[in-house]
Amino acid sequence: MRKFSRDHRWLSINTATVRKSRGADLPLTEIIEACARRGIRAISPWRDQVAAAGLDTVARLLRTHGIELSGYCRGGMFTATDAAGLQAARDDNRRAVDEACTLNAACLVLVVGGLPGALAGNAAHKDITAARAQVRDGIADLLEYARKAGMPLAIEPLHPMYAADRACINTLEQALDLCEALDPGPLADHAPRTRAALGVAVDVYHVWWDPKLEQQIARAGQERLLAFHVCDWLTPTADLLNDRGMMGDGVIDIPRIRGWMEAQGFAGYSEVEIFSAQNWWQRDHGEVLDTCIARHRSAV
Amino acid sequence: MRKFSRDHRWLSINTATVRKSRGADLPLTEIIEACARRGIRAISPWRDQVAAAGLDTVARLLRTHGIELSGYCRGGMFTATDAAGLQAARDDNRRAVDEACTLNAACLVLVVGGLPGALAGNAAHKDITAARAQVRDGIADLLEYARKAGMPLAIEPLHPMYAADRACINTLEQALDLCEALDPGPLADHAPRTRAALGVAVDVYHVWWDPKLEQQIARAGQERLLAFHVCDWLTPTADLLNDRGMMGDGVIDIPRIRGWMEAQGFAGYSEVEIFSAQNWWQRDHGEVLDTCIARHRSAV
Repeated sequence: MRKFSRDHRWLSINTATVRKSRGADLPLTEIIEACARRGIRAISPWRDQVAAAGLDTVARLLRTHGIELSGYCRGGMFTATDAAGLQAARDDNRRAVDEACTLNAACLVLVVGGLPGALAGNAAHKDITAARAQVRDGIADLLEYARKAGMPLAIEPLHPMYAADRACINTLEQALDLCEALDPGPLADHAPRTRAALGVAVDVYHVWWDPKLEQQIARAGQERLLAFHVCDWLTPTADLLNDRGMMGDGVIDIPRIRGWMEAQGFAGYSEVEIFSAQNWWQRDHGEVLDTCIARHRSAV
Repeated sequence: MRKFSRDHRWLSINTATVRKSRGADLPLTEIIEACARRGIRAISPWRDQVAAAGLDTVARLLRTHGIELSGYCRGGMFTATDAAGLQAARDDNRRAVDEACTLNAACLVLVVGGLPGALAGNAAHKDITAARAQVRDGIADLLEYARKAGMPLAIEPLHPMYAADRACINTLEQALDLCEALDPGPLADHAPRTRAALGVAVDVYHVWWDPKLEQQIARAGQERLLAFHVCDWLTPTADLLNDRGMMGDGVIDIPRIRGWMEAQGFAGYSEVEIFSAQNWWQRDHGEVLDTCIARHRSAV
């Protein structure tokens, strides 16, 4: 297992973590500069942040500083109530693939969507099986496009508490069932791929509780383990969305899970992703990034 | 599938639902009287409510009204940091079995516990695998005692958002793995049991999201399906503990899940269990019970 205690070369910052500084929006260009000053070698930006700064500006700035993308956040949201909604999702996801290519991202992360309308508090129906079928179809369609573009897709199973409104793929097992169905991989007599066309993003916050986690990480294997996201589960957790904790402040045994990843050959970044409206977003982003670096060494 | 639309003979009230009336504590004796007046045939009381009213008083009152217990809430909390803690849990769980027998409960529901100390915001460690081993040992020990007493134990898998602090058994599959390991059941050449010594309580709030739910309910079969709890998942959910919704107000397709239960031969009560500090506990308990009756008919 790689030693993280002495440097932060395998730290990536999901830019949601410093979306705000002292409560005010922080532009992506400033986030990138702040990361560069600290020797942070990778980020994972959100599409709205990239759009606000300008795709070409961001691509240029990343090249200037030699910062790479551990992933691009995010595609998905495949569910809808009608054909127009499905088509809009399809078009938007293809644009996400294109942007990910422009930014040379390691993968496009997919948060697949839940019951249509539920995120706005007004679910159109209660049929999660139907939502899952739409997700399957949406990924199958996008996969063709992404494969041609050479952009790996990483399904991110979300914690079951988000099943209704954000993602109806909720365990690593379920995500891998889908990967194997849609992207069976090379035949037995071919050399193994380094990276699958369709794999998973393992976020400890979403999967730490799963009694089958170790088994399913082993099942995924190196080629499908496309991303590793870290933060911590706080006790108590005050808010379902905006109370992700800093590594070391909660109850997740992060090094143990990273060990399971590395046992499969995963050698990528640990991407810190914290939404914390009441806490970290109220602080100065410099302090937050410095804390990420320190905790990456001590708790990841 | 049984028709619930015309009466409420298969409605049970978990007494946490009316623990408070207009914000003030409501004694269990008054809850029982209010249920009896409405022709509610079953309840599932909490141990603290029984203790406050007196075990013998409650037993007598239930007999007077012919009200039965769809379950007794609850045993469990098997995890601890030291031998004294484990012994205290053991003793307390045996008392819970005794009380369940006195009250002639259909089963003792087990909420198994999480990381020791986490419920108080101060987890003693992060080793959920170790906590799960303690749970297994605790159930194995209690099962011997409960079997002699003739009291079935129902493991209630709790939603993964409670894995840290309330229960580290979080899927029906995990619960059934434990059931089969500790209570393998009759040999193939014996008649099937009506009820297993160790089974599960299926609470739709905790399991509705699970992509393997239908499959695992079928695996459980009639003999291990000891209880069925209902409420609803609200979008948004404002609080991790105290925002369980009234049936019909959320996104759970309750009749579908009940159909899966009944396909296995389950013919017991639908037990309404709602914790709702900000909503239902602020109303008059009569209104709450009347709403439970109406929603049992329309949404269960």
